[in-house]
Amino acid sequence: MSESTPTTGPWPDAVFRLPAWVAEVAGPVGGVFPTATDRMALAVALARRNAAEGGGPFGAAVFTADEGRLVAPGMNLVLPAGTSIAHAEVVALTVAQQAVGAHDMDDGAGTRFELVTSAAPCIQCFGAVIWSGVTRLVCGARKEDVEAIGFDEGPVPADWVEQLESRGIAVQRDVLRDEAAAVLRDYAASGAPIYNARRGGSD
Amino acid sequence: MSESTPTTGPWPDAVFRLPAWVAEVAGPVGGVFPTATDRMALAVALARRNAAEGGGPFGAAVFTADEGRLVAPGMNLVLPAGTSIAHAEVVALTVAQQAVGAHDMDDGAGTRFELVTSAAPCIQCFGAVIWSGVTRLVCGARKEDVEAIGFDEGPVPADWVEQLESRGIAVQRDVLRDEAAAVLRDYAASGAPIYNARRGGSD
Repeated sequence: MSESTPTTGPWPDAVFRLPAWVAEVAGPVGGVFPTATDRMALAVALARRNAAEGGGPFGAAVFTADEGRLVAPGMNLVLPAGTSIAHAEVVALTVAQQAVGAHDMDDGAGTRFELVTSAAPCIQCFGAVIWSGVTRLVCGARKEDVEAIGFDEGPVPADWVEQLESRGIAVQRDVLRDEAAAVLRDYAASGAPIYNARRGGSD
Repeated sequence: MSESTPTTGPWPDAVFRLPAWVAEVAGPVGGVFPTATDRMALAVALARRNAAEGGGPFGAAVFTADEGRLVAPGMNLVLPAGTSIAHAEVVALTVAQQAVGAHDMDDGAGTRFELVTSAAPCIQCFGAVIWSGVTRLVCGARKEDVEAIGFDEGPVPADWVEQLESRGIAVQRDVLRDEAAAVLRDYAASGAPIYNARRGGSD
């Protein structure tokens, strides 16, 4: 493997780095968030702060599913990381996998992990959740809340919840939905950019 | 924005770094690959070398669509990068976006970009393609070739080609399909790990 070998070519690294302000919002690694509401409140707070810092209005975090220990916060880093891949869910999952030391966080025996996201996943993040090894997904705002302000979620299958559950990923929706949707509405009202919407599409 | 501010928290960065051997396979930045076959031959060669180096049997590259100048090679870095996100397509797109300096490579006026991948995209990468700004996708092996050796592509919509084309992304399939599928078969025959397959699923 070549993880410790810098490329000899001229191609740049791509880096997902959490912003300095994250500790102010998320507190320490391993902080305990007992309930789904507690966990979603963090995801929503990350979304709101990220928007205030000039980023997209999306936050997420990975927790241990039972105890609710914070493993990794995430937020939309599309602009600072310079890549369309860096949605809040992808950032939280990627940082969590680094922290846990496993590209598949479900080893079938040990600790189980959950992803909490301020908004239902777009088509990319729907797929990313499947491969990540989380066994639970908790969502705040719905797709229609996201699309109401002009963001595009892409062609997420109508049966996306059933698709995840058939793969062993439990889904809980509408946790602090109003608070999560308010972040989106406030973002749109501020006149901040709605990216990824140019090419439209029917859903 | 916080791109230049290291995190003050203890959360690790996630880094996609191309391996040192990539220059041996891909040649210099800006090398010209005139035809779809030329471009796919590179993606397949990246897949084969990556498998030989202990990685997944998947390669990809981003080119300028008209001239065929190499913008970024990619390969499956799930194991060395330690994240399930780092499929070949995501790596190529992310590095290309760094190289181009744009999170959306389609500015609607200038150079257009294409993603060439040794295998049809899984559900995550299908979504990633939509947000990336490429205007053309070229695939080698088909989903059934990938799934024949036990990898899971996830619930990719049956009309995925039409979904991409409706969003302005042209799709060409079956370019060097036999050569691309041979990399997959050789990988499986070598007894190398088929990850991301444990939870199964119907497609």
